[in-house]
Amino acid sequence: MIVYDVENFPNPLRVRIALAEKNALDAVTFQPVDVMNGEHRREAFLNKNPFAGVPVLELDDGTYIAECTAITEYIDHHFAGPSLTGETAKERAVISMMQRRAETQVLDAIATYFHHATDGLGPALETYQNIDWGQKQHTRALAGLAYFDNILAEQPYVAGEAFTMADITLWCGLVFGGFCNVSIPGDLTHLQAWYERVAKRPSIAA
Amino acid sequence: MIVYDVENFPNPLRVRIALAEKNALDAVTFQPVDVMNGEHRREAFLNKNPFAGVPVLELDDGTYIAECTAITEYIDHHFAGPSLTGETAKERAVISMMQRRAETQVLDAIATYFHHATDGLGPALETYQNIDWGQKQHTRALAGLAYFDNILAEQPYVAGEAFTMADITLWCGLVFGGFCNVSIPGDLTHLQAWYERVAKRPSIAA
Repeated sequence: MIVYDVENFPNPLRVRIALAEKNALDAVTFQPVDVMNGEHRREAFLNKNPFAGVPVLELDDGTYIAECTAITEYIDHHFAGPSLTGETAKERAVISMMQRRAETQVLDAIATYFHHATDGLGPALETYQNIDWGQKQHTRALAGLAYFDNILAEQPYVAGEAFTMADITLWCGLVFGGFCNVSIPGDLTHLQAWYERVAKRPSIAA
Repeated sequence: MIVYDVENFPNPLRVRIALAEKNALDAVTFQPVDVMNGEHRREAFLNKNPFAGVPVLELDDGTYIAECTAITEYIDHHFAGPSLTGETAKERAVISMMQRRAETQVLDAIATYFHHATDGLGPALETYQNIDWGQKQHTRALAGLAYFDNILAEQPYVAGEAFTMADITLWCGLVFGGFCNVSIPGDLTHLQAWYERVAKRPSIAA
């Protein structure tokens, strides 16, 4: 299997942490995509993902899987180890819901803020910016952080008692936030404690 | 189980079609939410879904599942019948990817256009509008329709040989588009043929 990505970008980080949780980093080859020079918008990459996003997973039969959640689901189902997406219908639904909230309310909100209301990846790549929309997403991200702080006041992990993909997505959102000055407000102590705890996991600390 | 929703809204429609495909419409109670009068933004509903979206599924143990994809996954896993989300790791990943594309490129794009660049649900509910962003999503939706036309030139359904959640989501996006003047361009004959074929399914025609 091949993962086409950019190391340290937030969505690729979700894939790398999921692989590490499954002890499967050695089972894939990483192929860097030169996003900063627009490689993701050229034909060879668009044949892998017409919507130009990284990461993309290429299966051994040549199938391309894009959309980060689909990739991490594949990793969870394909490799052995503790489930990151749940076993029962209820577990799977709760994790899916919380994972989606971590995306829309934090990771994607911060990404939209970054690409629209800051310099983002620079003028050559940020060919359309909507500053007002970006600022609106900044506000959404802060509300999202407060929501997750409330959740983590009641339970150790985002989707309940176990570490799951929902934690990985929230974590990557916060790492991205740290990169573009959306840090955890000081009064969100439950979120901060969770962050410090998650930081020590071998899949992340390594 | 209880589904809190608004009949004919696009995301609730995804849930209703999924239930019909599983022959499970009678297994749930539908509880209307008076979105037009702001019920979804009042405390009783926010206790079910703090992000104020419909639909919400209440399980028999009182757990609330929000986020439409999580709800339809639950329905697919809980009820018997042909799988809408796939069985193998690869099937699941491909359906998940295509379902997500149907969301981001069509249904959500049209929803954003509707709420931001048209009157949407009216001034009492549309308290923040960004017309430029809405128009941008209109352009995205048209590109999304062209993408799915290409896909459906090669295979009978959005994720391959079988009807899945990806078809349901695209269908609901197109129904919503029909409501707000984003119709299928005349040259997208594969998409149009798929639309007419899907319209005849008992889960939709009934």
